[in-house]
Amino acid sequence: MTPKDKEKARAGALELLRKAHIVLTRFEKENLEVADLGLGDIRHVGLEIVVYENNDRYCAKEIVLLPRQVCPEHKHPPVNHRNRGKQETFRCRWGKVYLYVAGDRTPRPKARVPLKYKRHLNIWHEIVLHPGDQYTIPPNGLHWFQAGERGAVVSEFSSTSTDERDVYTDPRIRRV
Amino acid sequence: MTPKDKEKARAGALELLRKAHIVLTRFEKENLEVADLGLGDIRHVGLEIVVYENNDRYCAKEIVLLPRQVCPEHKHPPVNHRNRGKQETFRCRWGKVYLYVAGDRTPRPKARVPLKYKRHLNIWHEIVLHPGDQYTIPPNGLHWFQAGERGAVVSEFSSTSTDERDVYTDPRIRRV
Repeated sequence: MTPKDKEKARAGALELLRKAHIVLTRFEKENLEVADLGLGDIRHVGLEIVVYENNDRYCAKEIVLLPRQVCPEHKHPPVNHRNRGKQETFRCRWGKVYLYVAGDRTPRPKARVPLKYKRHLNIWHEIVLHPGDQYTIPPNGLHWFQAGERGAVVSEFSSTSTDERDVYTDPRIRRV
Repeated sequence: MTPKDKEKARAGALELLRKAHIVLTRFEKENLEVADLGLGDIRHVGLEIVVYENNDRYCAKEIVLLPRQVCPEHKHPPVNHRNRGKQETFRCRWGKVYLYVAGDRTPRPKARVPLKYKRHLNIWHEIVLHPGDQYTIPPNGLHWFQAGERGAVVSEFSSTSTDERDVYTDPRIRRV
C-alpha cells in the first residue's frame, strides 16, 4: 500500500476509536498498526490494530475495521503439544461486525465482498455482533469478518498472539 | 452487606460504566458482581465486576471502583508447575486509579484508606493510572489499589481467574 493509503487508514481508524470513546496514549496512536496483509488494498481488505498486551499467556487488542473492510478467512493452528492454537474472543464495542464461522451456511448473508476476495471465503455461517455482543473462536477454527457500513471497533481477548503462524485461505496473503 | 448497600453499589457501578461509554448487554448489567470480600463495607472496600470471558487460557473483565473504593492487598500464588499464578494487566478506561506494587515506598501516596484497613497494607510503591495507562502485575506479585474521588473503570486482561485462590493480607477477607 502507498504511504498515503496507509495514513488514510490510520486516520480513519483513529476516528472510529474516538467515536467508540476508547482512550489511547499518544504512543499507541502513533504506533497503530495498519495491516494490509500484503494485498495492497487496505480499503477493502485488512485491519487496524492497537496491541495493549501480548505476553506468553494472554493478549489484548483493539481491532478497528473501516467501513466494509474485510479481515479474510484464516485460522490459528496448533503450535505444539501444550498450545492447541490461539483462542480468541471478539467483543464488539462500536459499529457492527458480520462474523463468519464454521456451521450451516446462512441464507442471504450480510457481508458484501468483492469477487476476487470472495473466491477465497469458504465458510458462511453468520454471527452478527452489535456493541456489547461477543463471540469466542475455538483454537484452529476458521473465521473471517467484515464491518458494516460505518466500520467497527472490536476488542480482542485471547491467548498469546503469534501472527506469523496464522494460516489464511487466500494464498496471496502474507501476514508479516 | 445489606441488599440496599448492594443495589446502591451496583447502580453506582453502572453509572460509571455509562460514563466510560462501555456498552453492556442487559444480562451483563443484571449480573454485575458486587464483591464486598466478606467485610460488609462495600462503600470503602470491594469492587464491582463484569466478567466478559474466563476460560482455561485467558480472562477479560471490567472492574469498577466507586469513589475512593479500595481493592485490598492480595496476590495470586502459583497453582501448579504449569501455572506460576495469575498474571494481570490493568488498563484504566475512566477516572483515576492509585495502584500499589512492590518497590520503594512512595512519599506522600495519594490513597486515603481508613485506619482499620490501612493496617493490612504493606506495600506503598505508587503507580497512578489515568485513562489509557496500563500496568502489568507479575504472577504472585502483591498489589492493591484505590480509585480517585470520582471512581474508576479498569479493564483487566489476564491469565485464567481463580478468585478462590487469591491470598489477601487482611485475614478477615473471604473472596468467595
